Amino acid sequence: MQANTCGHMTPEQFRQCGHAVVDWIARYMENVEGFPVLSQVTPGEIRQHLPSSPPEQGEQLQTILSDLDDVILPGITHWQSPNFFAYFPANASGPAILGDLVSSGLGVQGMLWATSPACTELETHVLDWLVEMLGLPEKFKSTTRGGGVIQDTASSATLCALVAARERASDFHTNTRGVDRVFTAYASTQAHSSMEKAAGIAGVGRDNLRLIDVDDAYAMRPTALEAAISRDLEAGHIPFFVGATVGSTSSTAIDPLSRIGQICRRHKLWLHVDAAHAGSAALCPEYRWIHAGLEQADSYCFNPHKWMLTNFDCDCLYVAERASLINSLSVLPEYLRNKATESGAVIDYRDWQLPLGRRFRALKLWFVIRHYGVSGLRQHIREHVSLAQEFAGWVEADDQFVLAAPVPLNLVCFRHVAGDEVNQRLLEALNSSGRLFLTHTKLDQRIVLRMAIGGAYTERRHVQRAWEYIQQAARANSA
Amino acid sequence: MQANTCGHMTPEQFRQCGHAVVDWIARYMENVEGFPVLSQVTPGEIRQHLPSSPPEQGEQLQTILSDLDDVILPGITHWQSPNFFAYFPANASGPAILGDLVSSGLGVQGMLWATSPACTELETHVLDWLVEMLGLPEKFKSTTRGGGVIQDTASSATLCALVAARERASDFHTNTRGVDRVFTAYASTQAHSSMEKAAGIAGVGRDNLRLIDVDDAYAMRPTALEAAISRDLEAGHIPFFVGATVGSTSSTAIDPLSRIGQICRRHKLWLHVDAAHAGSAALCPEYRWIHAGLEQADSYCFNPHKWMLTNFDCDCLYVAERASLINSLSVLPEYLRNKATESGAVIDYRDWQLPLGRRFRALKLWFVIRHYGVSGLRQHIREHVSLAQEFAGWVEADDQFVLAAPVPLNLVCFRHVAGDEVNQRLLEALNSSGRLFLTHTKLDQRIVLRMAIGGAYTERRHVQRAWEYIQQAARANSA
Repeated sequence: MQANTCGHMTPEQFRQCGHAVVDWIARYMENVEGFPVLSQVTPGEIRQHLPSSPPEQGEQLQTILSDLDDVILPGITHWQSPNFFAYFPANASGPAILGDLVSSGLGVQGMLWATSPACTELETHVLDWLVEMLGLPEKFKSTTRGGGVIQDTASSATLCALVAARERASDFHTNTRGVDRVFTAYASTQAHSSMEKAAGIAGVGRDNLRLIDVDDAYAMRPTALEAAISRDLEAGHIPFFVGATVGSTSSTAIDPLSRIGQICRRHKLWLHVDAAHAGSAALCPEYRWIHAGLEQADSYCFNPHKWMLTNFDCDCLYVAERASLINSLSVLPEYLRNKATESGAVIDYRDWQLPLGRRFRALKLWFVIRHYGVSGLRQHIREHVSLAQEFAGWVEADDQFVLAAPVPLNLVCFRHVAGDEVNQRLLEALNSSGRLFLTHTKLDQRIVLRMAIGGAYTERRHVQRAWEYIQQAARANSA
Repeated sequence: MQANTCGHMTPEQFRQCGHAVVDWIARYMENVEGFPVLSQVTPGEIRQHLPSSPPEQGEQLQTILSDLDDVILPGITHWQSPNFFAYFPANASGPAILGDLVSSGLGVQGMLWATSPACTELETHVLDWLVEMLGLPEKFKSTTRGGGVIQDTASSATLCALVAARERASDFHTNTRGVDRVFTAYASTQAHSSMEKAAGIAGVGRDNLRLIDVDDAYAMRPTALEAAISRDLEAGHIPFFVGATVGSTSSTAIDPLSRIGQICRRHKLWLHVDAAHAGSAALCPEYRWIHAGLEQADSYCFNPHKWMLTNFDCDCLYVAERASLINSLSVLPEYLRNKATESGAVIDYRDWQLPLGRRFRALKLWFVIRHYGVSGLRQHIREHVSLAQEFAGWVEADDQFVLAAPVPLNLVCFRHVAGDEVNQRLLEALNSSGRLFLTHTKLDQRIVLRMAIGGAYTERRHVQRAWEYIQQAARANSA
């Protein structure tokens, strides 16, 4: 890795260095199972190993790769470990990593169609494929008045949907003049925290997001939603948005979209459906029931970066009427004007998202779908659901533990019968062992352990061993 | 690339396929100069070459790579071509691409410190390095009450700053209760369109962003700012935010930060400084004058993904008081609670940005800074500034052309003396030739050509040849 002029790699140097980095990642893949899943460092420990000032002269790639091993890896919590069962899966895969590498190599900006037509058209195309692959409503296809776009996260998708909803409800008044009435939004008490964050950012106010009560399966109660809307209407407020959840983060609760959709229709509310984690399950026809009623939604999102082997960031947002979204987010300064935009014949995705710039993220989705094929992706989902069902059976068969929520897909919520303190001790013992990583939530005010099974390389043996560790730890910590 | 179970690549298969993709990129680097810079396809042309349905069975990597050449490349506008002079540079580099590759390979989520401590600590560390490298005010270091964070784009940085400003001005009232007064923001008529977009999204209203008149160098007039604030105060509004620009997109106009800062202090307005493109110039002590007065800013951002050889996305946002930002964006659901967060001893970057999830983007910055060293990065900036100054000299020496704005750094705004129609024809002739790519803006209601010199591989010969083409095209199109 020698320097020319200011030190650029030549293509030949890039080839050599690139092979070395690919080999480093391949070795990481081979070894990841052996690392403590949850990083065991203390705050500030990584920084202590970094020089306080940047280097004046360039360094060799080998030096940097050595530091990756020595300095960085101890501070990594290994999301790609087959023993990672915490939060939600964020599974990467070989083809996704390589698709993303091509995107970095091309280094194009996809803000406008004209700034790289393939970046826009491949995205539109692959998102249309996904409508077919997941059996989503036709109205989400780009060939209708709707269409799909890649966002970084479901948080941003929610914010885009909320802003478009606010604009539709105000005849595009608040975008220009600011929020000047009380606009009220609705989501269940189990909805993702990004709903609350979005309400704050958009100037609607977090208190004006009404958190609706849930039933025994932690799904939104439509009657409670209806009542909340009525109260707000009586108070002279403007109900405008319902954020329904298909697969809550805590426990995979699935809100009843059909009944919620009817309420939204009646009151002309925007229905956004957040299926960030669970949505990928719809690749398999037998799980498409999770989306029953989705045809009434104004927008929908799911994250291939969670459970569809596409490395972060890749959230797919669909809207039924792209005009509402575009009219809310479009600004056209002179320096971005171009013939293609003015022809109206193209999509400019900058108007479908919060930022202006955008990477060529469709490449990694394209690589993933083509590498695995639809059948490979289905098998991937089925394996995880099957492992979770088996794990749930083990929990049910053990007197020490009980299931804490229904297990529709790949997340098992369970707890030790001895109460919060034991569950907390159990969690800490397991995670500090480094053998596996689990996280918790609270359901009905009680601490619950969450076993999210979705790692690309998680096999039956990992789940089985995790259960053995959990049982052992329970014996050691419940005495 | 054979399948095991659902079709995952083994580490060995990843190694082989990874080498093939690295080689593909190295070949692209070797050949990029020969492609038409601006893609010449028509709307829909790329999609016509893509199958209407996704493949049921997996495909070979070689097939996908062939399609990259045959289907995708014709639809690419080559931002990495040394003949790309449009919009703004978005220069990638070997080390950046490889740092990003490591990030994809590790596949970690950096939303919390605990979810990968190294992801957070390396980011904090590298952003502190950059304070030193650019000679930024000490208050932006994490060791003070401020600190830095990587955002996707300056658009998102602006929105974060605007929301934090709105909250500070309302005692954190609007975040909870919604916007219920008229909040007024200020930026020059030359400010980036993302300011207007942010005002709309945040519920402040685009009309409540006052666009302040500029002087002959297209920089904000402080007296006009002061007058606008007074008018709004008299009307009972709440002035809260000034977005100043260091290096406008149109013409590298540099707002007078010192005088603007004094006005902000007097009226307790949040001063955000957007140096997306120009900021990297401050790597060189001789260009640090662009930041004169920055010590009065509440927030600041610049984009290493524009002019510091770090591939998109990588915007560095700094705040002087991190508490305002965090208090505006923090939400802590049960399922994200953890001991490190509760100890208060760590940074959780999810509270410094719009989305929850985040990639390990500090790696690419770390690779870039270490590969080039500070001296290599300075040389890179100096070469481009020097080329732009030389180009400006050629324009001045040619009777057919005039400079349309000062040329403080690496962007030359110029126009043919024969008026808008000729400049428009000139632009179209040049861009449809595929030999180079330029874009335009309007200054004083006149069309202006923009020559932005910042490609990683742009050398003197490319700039020289571009000027020859421009002169030839002028002779052919001004008759």
